[in-house]
Amino acid sequence: DFLHALENDIKPAFGAADEKLDTFLSRGIINWGDPVTSVLDDGELLIQQAASADGPGLVSILLEGAPNAGKTALAAQLAKDSGFPFVKICSPDDMVGFTESAKCLQIKKIFDDAYRSMLSCVVVDNIERLLDYGPIGPRYSNLTLQALLVLLKKEPPKGRRLLIICTSSRRQVLDQMEMISCFTDVLHVANLSTGTHLMSILKQSDAFTKDDLAKMASKLSGRKASVGVKKLLGLIDMVKQTDPKSRVVKLLSKLEEEGYIDLVA
Amino acid sequence: DFLHALENDIKPAFGAADEKLDTFLSRGIINWGDPVTSVLDDGELLIQQAASADGPGLVSILLEGAPNAGKTALAAQLAKDSGFPFVKICSPDDMVGFTESAKCLQIKKIFDDAYRSMLSCVVVDNIERLLDYGPIGPRYSNLTLQALLVLLKKEPPKGRRLLIICTSSRRQVLDQMEMISCFTDVLHVANLSTGTHLMSILKQSDAFTKDDLAKMASKLSGRKASVGVKKLLGLIDMVKQTDPKSRVVKLLSKLEEEGYIDLVA
Amino acid sequence: DFLHALENDIKPAFGAADEKLDTFLSRGIINWGDPVTSVLDDGELLIQQAASADGPGLVSILLEGAPNAGKTALAAQLAKDSGFPFVKICSPDDMVGFTESAKCLQIKKIFDDAYRSMLSCVVVDNIERLLDYGPIGPRYSNLTLQALLVLLKKEPPKGRRLLIICTSSRRQVLDQMEMISCFTDVLHVANLSTGTHLMSILKQSDAFTKDDLAKMASKLSGRKASVGVKKLLGLIDMVKQTDPKSRVVKLLSKLEEEGYIDLVA
Amino acid sequence: DFLHALENDIKPAFGAADEKLDTFLSRGIINWGDPVTSVLDDGELLIQQAASADGPGLVSILLEGAPNAGKTALAAQLAKDSGFPFVKICSPDDMVGFTESAKCLQIKKIFDDAYRSMLSCVVVDNIERLLDYGPIGPRYSNLTLQALLVLLKKEPPKGRRLLIICTSSRRQVLDQMEMISCFTDVLHVANLSTGTHLMSILKQSDAFTKDDLAKMASKLSGRKASVGVKKLLGLIDMVKQTDPKSRVVKLLSKLEEEGYIDLVA
Amino acid sequence: DFLHALENDIKPAFGAADEKLDTFLSRGIINWGDPVTSVLDDGELLIQQAASADGPGLVSILLEGAPNAGKTALAAQLAKDSGFPFVKICSPDDMVGFTESAKCLQIKKIFDDAYRSMLSCVVVDNIERLLDYGPIGPRYSNLTLQALLVLLKKEPPKGRRLLIICTSSRRQVLDQMEMISCFTDVLHVANLSTGTHLMSILKQSDAFTKDDLAKMASKLSGRKASVGVKKLLGLIDMVKQTDPKSRVVKLLSKLEEEGYIDLVA
Amino acid sequence: DFLHALENDIKPAFGAADEKLDTFLSRGIINWGDPVTSVLDDGELLIQQAASADGPGLVSILLEGAPNAGKTALAAQLAKDSGFPFVKICSPDDMVGFTESAKCLQIKKIFDDAYRSMLSCVVVDNIERLLDYGPIGPRYSNLTLQALLVLLKKEPPKGRRLLIICTSSRRQVLDQMEMISCFTDVLHVANLSTGTHLMSILKQSDAFTKDDLAKMASKLSGRKASVGVKKLLGLIDMVKQTDPKSRVVKLLSKLEEEGYIDLVA
Ligand SMILES: Nc1ncnc2c1ncn2[C@@H]1O[C@H](COP(=O)(O)OP(=O)(O)OP(=O)(O)O)[C@@H](O)[C@H]1O
Ligand SMILES: Nc1ncnc2c1ncn2[C@@H]1O[C@H](COP(=O)(O)OP(=O)(O)OP(=O)(O)O)[C@@H](O)[C@H]1O
Ligand SMILES: Nc1ncnc2c1ncn2[C@@H]1O[C@H](COP(=O)(O)OP(=O)(O)OP(=O)(O)O)[C@@H](O)[C@H]1O
Ligand SMILES: Nc1ncnc2c1ncn2[C@@H]1O[C@H](COP(=O)(O)OP(=O)(O)OP(=O)(O)O)[C@@H](O)[C@H]1O
Ligand SMILES: Nc1ncnc2c1ncn2[C@@H]1O[C@H](COP(=O)(O)OP(=O)(O)OP(=O)(O)O)[C@@H](O)[C@H]1O
Ligand SMILES: Nc1ncnc2c1ncn2[C@@H]1O[C@H](COP(=O)(O)OP(=O)(O)OP(=O)(O)O)[C@@H](O)[C@H]1O
Ligand SMILES: [Mg+2]
Ligand SMILES: [Mg+2]
Ligand SMILES: [Mg+2]
Ligand SMILES: [Mg+2]
Ligand SMILES: [Mg+2]
Ligand SMILES: [Mg+2]
Repeated sequence: DFLHALENDIKPAFGAADEKLDTFLSRGIINWGDPVTSVLDDGELLIQQAASADGPGLVSILLEGAPNAGKTALAAQLAKDSGFPFVKICSPDDMVGFTESAKCLQIKKIFDDAYRSMLSCVVVDNIERLLDYGPIGPRYSNLTLQALLVLLKKEPPKGRRLLIICTSSRRQVLDQMEMISCFTDVLHVANLSTGTHLMSILKQSDAFTKDDLAKMASKLSGRKASVGVKKLLGLIDMVKQTDPKSRVVKLLSKLEEEGYIDLVA
Repeated sequence: DFLHALENDIKPAFGAADEKLDTFLSRGIINWGDPVTSVLDDGELLIQQAASADGPGLVSILLEGAPNAGKTALAAQLAKDSGFPFVKICSPDDMVGFTESAKCLQIKKIFDDAYRSMLSCVVVDNIERLLDYGPIGPRYSNLTLQALLVLLKKEPPKGRRLLIICTSSRRQVLDQMEMISCFTDVLHVANLSTGTHLMSILKQSDAFTKDDLAKMASKLSGRKASVGVKKLLGLIDMVKQTDPKSRVVKLLSKLEEEGYIDLVA
Repeated sequence: DFLHALENDIKPAFGAADEKLDTFLSRGIINWGDPVTSVLDDGELLIQQAASADGPGLVSILLEGAPNAGKTALAAQLAKDSGFPFVKICSPDDMVGFTESAKCLQIKKIFDDAYRSMLSCVVVDNIERLLDYGPIGPRYSNLTLQALLVLLKKEPPKGRRLLIICTSSRRQVLDQMEMISCFTDVLHVANLSTGTHLMSILKQSDAFTKDDLAKMASKLSGRKASVGVKKLLGLIDMVKQTDPKSRVVKLLSKLEEEGYIDLVA
Repeated sequence: DFLHALENDIKPAFGAADEKLDTFLSRGIINWGDPVTSVLDDGELLIQQAASADGPGLVSILLEGAPNAGKTALAAQLAKDSGFPFVKICSPDDMVGFTESAKCLQIKKIFDDAYRSMLSCVVVDNIERLLDYGPIGPRYSNLTLQALLVLLKKEPPKGRRLLIICTSSRRQVLDQMEMISCFTDVLHVANLSTGTHLMSILKQSDAFTKDDLAKMASKLSGRKASVGVKKLLGLIDMVKQTDPKSRVVKLLSKLEEEGYIDLVA
Repeated sequence: DFLHALENDIKPAFGAADEKLDTFLSRGIINWGDPVTSVLDDGELLIQQAASADGPGLVSILLEGAPNAGKTALAAQLAKDSGFPFVKICSPDDMVGFTESAKCLQIKKIFDDAYRSMLSCVVVDNIERLLDYGPIGPRYSNLTLQALLVLLKKEPPKGRRLLIICTSSRRQVLDQMEMISCFTDVLHVANLSTGTHLMSILKQSDAFTKDDLAKMASKLSGRKASVGVKKLLGLIDMVKQTDPKSRVVKLLSKLEEEGYIDLVA
Repeated sequence: DFLHALENDIKPAFGAADEKLDTFLSRGIINWGDPVTSVLDDGELLIQQAASADGPGLVSILLEGAPNAGKTALAAQLAKDSGFPFVKICSPDDMVGFTESAKCLQIKKIFDDAYRSMLSCVVVDNIERLLDYGPIGPRYSNLTLQALLVLLKKEPPKGRRLLIICTSSRRQVLDQMEMISCFTDVLHVANLSTGTHLMSILKQSDAFTKDDLAKMASKLSGRKASVGVKKLLGLIDMVKQTDPKSRVVKLLSKLEEEGYIDLVA
């Protein structure tokens, strides 16, 4: 059924979206622990449901987690894994300075295009920015909110299938806006939370010697942490600018300073 | 009188609306228990009143209930059952990204068309979305609210008859907006609330063996539940993606996880 | 003087308004008790004052009462009884979807037309809808409010006379808006409040046999009620759809269910 | 100096304003007691100051009092008494449905015209309506407020003189808007507050016989009251529609009913 | 350096501004006490700083004080004293009914003109009116606020010098708007506060005889007062309309009535 | 790598920005103490990270501190030190009176230009003014906020590098707007806080004799202070207008008066 659709879908849209997906995945997905596996597995099941002929026409997923947790990269990964011929990205990056009506129109257009294809996947990145959410007030674009509330529940035309993958770092705000209940499923994208998680990332990088890694491992062993994968990769970039000998100390002190790992009692 | 109108009504509008009604009824109406019967019966009586020559020119019904309870499908069913020659759907699905004035104009046009026919039925789906209701603020389109408050009470021209069927999952909001008192009658669309209700649905599906059903029946017997028919049908779709042997367990655990059925004490 | 004006008034506007008045009076005025008489009498006195040569140029009346109490019908009746040659209706029914400035312009035009006639009567129906009053917020059109506050006090040109009859089911809101003090007089349109009141209406209808009426009379005797005449007439319509034998029981149970009559202790 | 100005002022604007002043004074000024004398005297002094060559170029007066107290009529009387050759009326009656910017423009134009004349008088009636003051919110036109705050303090060009007479029944609101301190002087227009005040008005009317008046006098003697002269004249109009014999009783009962005079203990 | 600039500045703008300065100074500056001297001295120092070649390019002064305290006249005096060849007035008097964007544009234009001259002085009168400050809400033009916040700190082009003199009677509001810290210095314009202060003004006027003045002096000696110089001059104008013999009494009673001087215990 | 980019970058934009940087640095950077060194050092490290080939494409810095602390000058210094061929300034000085959409467009254009260059540096001065932040309300431009929230995190196209340097004196407001977490790093620009700090600045100026400086040093020794470098330089300018002999006393008394240094107990 899936292959059949692939063969018969007349308007596959490779190109632009693929490139954007790669940008989102610039550093790949490093499997630093169970939370990553879990998101990928649950995601796969939902994709199957979306692709299955006797399933519902519409499956919508929300990937929610702290800033820098890796939400956008995981959304891109799922979109790639789906193998759906039509993939489209709806990202605030491409709508800087748009009025709310322009934003709304753009979103609508992306969905309208998706409805025309047999198997479509729409990635809606950073919902709170699409909604122009400003915490002082608070303010938000009700026009965009209403559009999303409808689009997240609107069935594609008979026989077509649509997979929607959204990301947000403001779950609570979406909840207040009564958007959470619109999703088929909500998957949590976690921060790295143990020394072991951190070590998985450090080992993949080329910034440290074996000795460094061993030192780090002993220092981090058993400590609680809370840092997003994007932040951690950024800090590693920073220590790379410094003298190889001082990197371990530098990284540890930066991690403690900013509160990303617990201080040793 | 009803037949006479049928014969003489010059602008019956089959087609578009009929198709939309079918979409709304994609999985039909499964009579899973008394609450369903009750809505259908009360609905029939109100339809008769709307069709009767010496009745009032206007009958308006609100179908209200939780998200996924089956409101839209039941509204479509009543509209079909009415046999009224002119049926028109007013749905937020068709107004994504409309400004409030565009929405208002569209609604007005649908009613104006309806007034031109002898026997008309207008289905107004998802009123809170038509009103652009955003719970943070809260915000809503007062222009649309005012239009609906008038249209729900405005008699069609002399001799014509109009049946209005609305749906909403925000009864309390409509109450605050003083819209509830505008309806001739308000019918509650309930969630499935007992194991027996759930079994009625499960039996209709082709996802389970007889043994599965027996197992489910014993597990669900006497337990309280609260789940919308649309949600339940969706979960059945999901378990269909999994190994036939694990479906019963999978469905039960999912139902418990999401709080749709009480945990066994 | 009144006759003289009638003969010399050059722009009497029969037609449109007359038809609309008839629609408002579709079921006539049934005198179900003292409150009805009282409104009609007070209204007559005010009409005389408006018509009298040495009276003031402007008389304005507010008919206020609960939804369905019969305000619009009574306003229409007074307008008809006045015998004023120029009668104009200003009703939200005719302004669905109007912006506040369009509404305002329309209202202004109606009054400007009225000022051109010697003896004019303007019926302003459902003021809260003209004001686009939305209870959440609350919201209202200040443009329209300001226009009405001025128009309700503005004398017609020298020698002309103007009778304004308004209706509203939101007295308290008008009070907060400081509109109440603009009227020459405010008349309360009451709900039916006793069994005797109800019997007056039931006797006029063709839905019940003599026996039915006797049964009803004994059941309703001495009970307190609170129901608008429009609602009651609607319920009678509904029971007419049912078997003649069950009508009495059906009507009584419906009245009790909805709280329109007190339960018997 | 005053006469000189009269002779040399090139653009006197008789006509329109004069007519309007007469409308405002349709029933003249009845001197029902000291409060009336006091307003007229203070007003005269301020007019002299405005007209005097070595006085300031600008004098502004606020007449404030309850609705119906006679503010507009007294403003008109003062404007007439001033004998200023250029008199202009700025009244909300002429701006029904104007947007705030249209209102503002109109006000500005009136003042600009006034600046062109040697001796000008501008009557600004009903300031709270010009400001579109709506008590729910509250709302008001800040554009108009700012314009008035400036215009009330802006000196006319060198050598010219300007008298501004404003009326308002919302002194407290103007106070909150910090407008009160803009006036050269604020004069209170009082309600009639004693039986003697009321008798002064009743004696002027042709509605009562000598006997009636004697009866009234004895009934009202020593009682406290609070009624605006416009309201009282209106009530007299109303009782004139009734049988001459019942007028005294009718008027007294109406006055008591509406709380305009104290009940006899 | 100052003279050099005078000679070489190509676009001096005499005329319009000069006339306006004279209007602001219609009654001159009477030195009624130390507070006046102090403002003039501090002002002079700041002007020197603005004019000095090795000083900063920008000096901004706020004159703040109660309504009628004489702020505008003192601002005009300082502008005149500066001897700067380019003087421009930015006053709400000239922007009645302007939208906020029109106001903003006008202000911007005045500053842009100033930047083109070597030595410029801009008088910004009555900032709270430029900001359309309405205390109910409160409301204000944020567009104008932002423009002023930037313009008050923006250095003129290299080598040019700019002196900004602002007035306001709402210091606290400017403080809340964080505008106060934008000024180089803030000078307080005080009300007259002692009998001696008042006598300085009375002696300058031609309204009183020597005897009158002696009487006044003894009556006022040692009493506390709080009255703006503009108000006091206005009251003197008023008493000039009355009989020379009663002037002393009239003025004293008026001053006490309005609370401008303390009552004698 | 850095040099390679320099050679190959086709659109270096010297000129306008360079001049503006010089204006911002009109009085140079005086190293008055450790806080200055610290900002310059941390800044250098971040610049290296931005320039490094295997670093991230985007580095963003916030310089935050009290008004007059020297934020803008330090931002300009870092931009100059970076040696990046494309430097662009985004300053509210150049957007006076711009509507929020015009501001937004301008900001977007600056970033779009930067993305076209291999190595770009954008200085965003005074973020709270770009956001039109008004503390009463509070008010701000949500359009601009949303644009900045996206632009601060948006990676430049593959292979290009972008350094963003922002300044703000309202850290807390940016925090509430959830903008702080968008920066790679936040550097605090401190006020001078000790007598030693002040002496460093005084010694650089040509306003004092050696004796003066010695006197000052003894007076300031050990005292706490809190004054921005811009304010201090301004006060030195002011005392330069006065007699050389009184300068020390004048400066000290002014510093104490305004609370910039603690009073001696
Ligand atoms: N297991 C992982 N999950 C997610 N991202 C990963 C993982 N391993 C490596 N990455 C890399 O980490 C980065 C995650 O950044 P990403 O933009 O997805 O974070 P984000 O949560 O969307 O951040 P923001 O809150 O700013 O939107 C990407 O460059 C990605 O390639
Ligand atoms: N007894 C039933 N009542 C209603 N719907 C039923 C019933 N039995 C089966 N269905 C099917 O269940 C689905 C109900 O979905 P529907 O869209 O009507 O729910 P809803 O309450 O309108 O949801 P939402 O809150 O999202 O608007 C339809 O596909 C319908 O065919
Ligand atoms: N005594 C009566 N007073 C008023 N209406 C009566 C009376 N007797 C019969 N009627 C009929 O009752 C109906 C009253 O409806 P009407 O529209 O006037 O009520 P309403 O109070 O204006 O309702 P709403 O609150 O919806 O505006 C009319 O059809 C009228 O013909
Ligand atoms: N002493 C008096 N003072 C004022 N008006 C008087 C007096 N005597 C008679 N009148 C008449 O009373 C009426 C006063 O009405 P007016 O419109 O001035 O009242 P108002 O206070 O302006 O009312 P509103 O509050 O509606 O604006 C006028 O018709 C006027 O001719
Ligand atoms: N010492 C003085 N200081 C200021 N004004 C004086 C002084 N002596 C006389 N005057 C005169 O007093 C008047 C002061 O009025 P001005 O308009 O400056 O007051 P203001 O404080 O700006 O009032 P407002 O609060 O209405 O803006 C001017 O006419 C001025 O010529
Ligand atoms: N160490 C220093 N740090 C910063 N500025 C210095 C330093 N030494 C001297 N300066 C000079 O001090 C002035 C600092 O002014 P700048 O405009 O940068 O302050 P700011 O904090 O941006 O002020 P604002 O809060 O008004 O934006 C500049 O003229 C600069 O040349
Ligand atoms: Mg992301
Ligand atoms: Mg639905
Ligand atoms: Mg009605
Ligand atoms: Mg009036
Ligand atoms: Mg002033
Ligand atoms: Mg700065």
